[in-house]
Amino acid sequence: MNKQNDGFGCRLIVDCPDKRGVVAKVSTSLSNLGATILEAHQHSDVASGHFFMRYEVARDAATSPEAWGAGFLLEGLSDVRDELGLNVRVSSMAERPKVALLATKASHCLVDVLQRWRSGELHCDITCVIANHPEMGEYADWYKVPFHHVDFTHQPKAAAFQEVDCLLDDHQVDLTVLARFMQIIPAPMIAKHHGRMINIHHSFLPSFVGARPYDQAFERGVKLIGATCHYVTEELDEGPIIEQEVIRVSHTDTPADLRRKGRMCEREALGRGLRLHLEGRIFIHGNKTVVFSD
Amino acid sequence: MNKQNDGFGCRLIVDCPDKRGVVAKVSTSLSNLGATILEAHQHSDVASGHFFMRYEVARDAATSPEAWGAGFLLEGLSDVRDELGLNVRVSSMAERPKVALLATKASHCLVDVLQRWRSGELHCDITCVIANHPEMGEYADWYKVPFHHVDFTHQPKAAAFQEVDCLLDDHQVDLTVLARFMQIIPAPMIAKHHGRMINIHHSFLPSFVGARPYDQAFERGVKLIGATCHYVTEELDEGPIIEQEVIRVSHTDTPADLRRKGRMCEREALGRGLRLHLEGRIFIHGNKTVVFSD
Amino acid sequence: MNKQNDGFGCRLIVDCPDKRGVVAKVSTSLSNLGATILEAHQHSDVASGHFFMRYEVARDAATSPEAWGAGFLLEGLSDVRDELGLNVRVSSMAERPKVALLATKASHCLVDVLQRWRSGELHCDITCVIANHPEMGEYADWYKVPFHHVDFTHQPKAAAFQEVDCLLDDHQVDLTVLARFMQIIPAPMIAKHHGRMINIHHSFLPSFVGARPYDQAFERGVKLIGATCHYVTEELDEGPIIEQEVIRVSHTDTPADLRRKGRMCEREALGRGLRLHLEGRIFIHGNKTVVFSD
Amino acid sequence: MNKQNDGFGCRLIVDCPDKRGVVAKVSTSLSNLGATILEAHQHSDVASGHFFMRYEVARDAATSPEAWGAGFLLEGLSDVRDELGLNVRVSSMAERPKVALLATKASHCLVDVLQRWRSGELHCDITCVIANHPEMGEYADWYKVPFHHVDFTHQPKAAAFQEVDCLLDDHQVDLTVLARFMQIIPAPMIAKHHGRMINIHHSFLPSFVGARPYDQAFERGVKLIGATCHYVTEELDEGPIIEQEVIRVSHTDTPADLRRKGRMCEREALGRGLRLHLEGRIFIHGNKTVVFSD
Repeated sequence: MNKQNDGFGCRLIVDCPDKRGVVAKVSTSLSNLGATILEAHQHSDVASGHFFMRYEVARDAATSPEAWGAGFLLEGLSDVRDELGLNVRVSSMAERPKVALLATKASHCLVDVLQRWRSGELHCDITCVIANHPEMGEYADWYKVPFHHVDFTHQPKAAAFQEVDCLLDDHQVDLTVLARFMQIIPAPMIAKHHGRMINIHHSFLPSFVGARPYDQAFERGVKLIGATCHYVTEELDEGPIIEQEVIRVSHTDTPADLRRKGRMCEREALGRGLRLHLEGRIFIHGNKTVVFSD
Repeated sequence: MNKQNDGFGCRLIVDCPDKRGVVAKVSTSLSNLGATILEAHQHSDVASGHFFMRYEVARDAATSPEAWGAGFLLEGLSDVRDELGLNVRVSSMAERPKVALLATKASHCLVDVLQRWRSGELHCDITCVIANHPEMGEYADWYKVPFHHVDFTHQPKAAAFQEVDCLLDDHQVDLTVLARFMQIIPAPMIAKHHGRMINIHHSFLPSFVGARPYDQAFERGVKLIGATCHYVTEELDEGPIIEQEVIRVSHTDTPADLRRKGRMCEREALGRGLRLHLEGRIFIHGNKTVVFSD
Repeated sequence: MNKQNDGFGCRLIVDCPDKRGVVAKVSTSLSNLGATILEAHQHSDVASGHFFMRYEVARDAATSPEAWGAGFLLEGLSDVRDELGLNVRVSSMAERPKVALLATKASHCLVDVLQRWRSGELHCDITCVIANHPEMGEYADWYKVPFHHVDFTHQPKAAAFQEVDCLLDDHQVDLTVLARFMQIIPAPMIAKHHGRMINIHHSFLPSFVGARPYDQAFERGVKLIGATCHYVTEELDEGPIIEQEVIRVSHTDTPADLRRKGRMCEREALGRGLRLHLEGRIFIHGNKTVVFSD
Repeated sequence: MNKQNDGFGCRLIVDCPDKRGVVAKVSTSLSNLGATILEAHQHSDVASGHFFMRYEVARDAATSPEAWGAGFLLEGLSDVRDELGLNVRVSSMAERPKVALLATKASHCLVDVLQRWRSGELHCDITCVIANHPEMGEYADWYKVPFHHVDFTHQPKAAAFQEVDCLLDDHQVDLTVLARFMQIIPAPMIAKHHGRMINIHHSFLPSFVGARPYDQAFERGVKLIGATCHYVTEELDEGPIIEQEVIRVSHTDTPADLRRKGRMCEREALGRGLRLHLEGRIFIHGNKTVVFSD
């Protein structure tokens, strides 16, 4: 779907208890505010009676560019918002969220995200790579991203995580990506980054939670393996699922082969899931997601 | 997506040259007419500047059921329609389109459609099976659908097609499905059924147009084969594509193996494409389709 | 892969602890017995040191057809078998295993297997359909297969299963297919049919074991659902996996939609898995399978 | 499949007109030469009556390592080779083919191959990157691979290709990979590198041959796009297909979206195809391939 990054394209994210007239009133307000809808998605969750909506809007050609923008739209929608009890977020599509990548020694997800980003696929600023081992520093250097090695060996884990969290604060990150970080994040840190921390799990969840999923898959003899991109919650590997990918395997594949084949799934699920998040296409609803794919 | 077949659920199909305010005005009118939007899709085609919209709406609980329905909504939307130059269709979701299946000797697509229909997956009435060979009559009998064998051997093809077309008229069919019919439809008959005749082609179009696509695929040595569900147009195998499906093959597969494996693709592409058409989810736009998938 | 059903094509199934020279000695014996290898697969399981081999062989043109066949080959291989400690099975590819289908009220897997069989995709004799409800009787009639309704309501389950097992004995079945039978088979009956009873489970195992997997998948919010064809073992849904299939789903899909979309996976995983078993392409090894796909 | 790179593992590639006893005689010779078969594939092409075989063999524990190896095996098989008229190649699995990557300005395939190589997925030496633009030089530097910029603008194409070919000679390359090189290779250069030059085409061949396949796919309105890894032959985009990959698209995807989504297919088809070639798993047979996948 085409997007408008001329400084005037805006993204409108709305949710509320479902009721009649939300679309009518919001779209009428937008029309009155000189906005043309470029892309629209909406969804009513039947079980919970909740409504979700995402619009990409552009300034209508007849509308003056002065003052127009996210603030202008949010202000103009405030009456409708209050009347209908809407949650509304409006953001300029020119904004670039700040992203931190957390890694350990495995490079495939890290390099893939960095290269997608460099190629312009991911609309964000990658502000730092943080790792508990030094090896990934070389890749961060290549892509001119600050690298922080946090020592998880010679200090207590709590202290190490404290250091990571300070770095996230220092870099003012909007999103933390666990690109095969392989460390269990402490609950308070998860709570602090609720809805702003995504992980790539190297199995087709809910199969093979926990450690060594490829070895588990080998033991079970499955004929397809996969990977899952999900939000991090306190329950390990139980957070809302964003995206999944699978690939066929057979009895000839050793655990090492599964790891190699699975990397495609990990890269794809993470790359696509990250892009969906950065474009504001995901609503977390209970322990599930509403994903308005492009 | 859930659907409402209580006699009050309606489907609204709109298209027009893209302009500001269409969503606002249509949704405001609907709200005023006591309609709640259950499902909504819209799409702006950038190249042509054309806009497409599909709503599933239900009667709001506070609205009187008397008079409410497709006619009521169409009447109520007439002012907006005229003002904005909209093409509007409204239909009750309780309506069941009349469908004819055309076949020859291959049973896999025919039986699959009949069984999906019997299982309630396809919201339509299958009014007849027409074939140029008698073998499929047994299947039609099983499913209690009238069977017509049209002789394509002892009369000119033009006369045979005339006979087929009369049967379609007699059964007042809304949609004709070529379930591996394997005959080239005459141009006037295609013109008459424009947008109301779908075919399943046994290749991943535009690869391997024409006859014997599985043999062509074998000769070329492709590593995936497929099938394509598309609208029939005068250009053979060139009509707007609705749905496609693929499956992996290898050097061990003979042409007979490709035919067998390809049947899954044919059944799936046809079954899904047919369902999408019956639910009014497809717009033909030039030689392409806009498909609002559920 | 092409097969030879002229009455002289034979299938050779061999396994043994891995050692040097097995292929050399078996293939030399076959050559001396006038057999040409049409298709060959072999696999060494590294962890267990076990070796698996499957050959399809034809009578060499220069070899007399008299006496040639499965018995002739088995006899001719007996010295090698004893020397190397091989498990050897030889069967004529003209043989048709006897298959029973067990069902309840869901028709999609049952009809799909029956139709594949009628179309010649499955080289077997389907000797009966057994169900705990009467509805599937109509389908059995269509395909001219004896139908047995076993009452699971007005007699103890043990008695009902006893009745089922007697029917399997009466029909001398080689393979029992649980085509969505939805009853937990008693342990002694599983033991009796070890390696000769296959099930289609409506989830991508090991995800969502047990009842109502589509509802579980809906609750978890997965982005792909699937089905698994596996051998029945005493541990429910834990038997060796033969084949799996998946399909994409989204937040718009209700549990009913998941059931509908999942049927494709069920039909495909069962149809392919059943064919693989009937062609002797599967070895059960521990709780996993070696599958020599065509 | 596990491989043995201890310096004693060897790969045996055999083809010949199909006849009885090839497997028997070759495997008997191997057994006598102290070789254990680790992995075996064979295929008889029915139409042409040609036979293909690939073995991975290890030195048996009881066999002296002295003298053992590719030369030893080839010598030991010479009698069988001459008797049966076999084409035989034997190579040490420790050997690393020399590979050149040709690129232009698009980085996704180039970086993906380099990163797979650095991660140990591709058993080869990448000896150089050659490009007709300077931009890819930075990536070559990262991976410490010599970079050659060949000027295609200020000299005749023939001279430029002459320069490329000299570089390939200088680096003694065994395989040339066109990683989105986007230049049509001259016929004599193709002939010289027959079977040793692979290309990634950004469409699901034979659909959309020639230039701008993603724009062609957009125009045609297909519902799946793909990429094809194939050997380069004089007929543009017509060479033997090694591997293909596809991904779903929809009416919402612009040509730019197709390019982005298609990159996954390009990377996967090339990465997997390249690996298959490097492991000697591919036979070119007429204009098709026999691929003995791991």
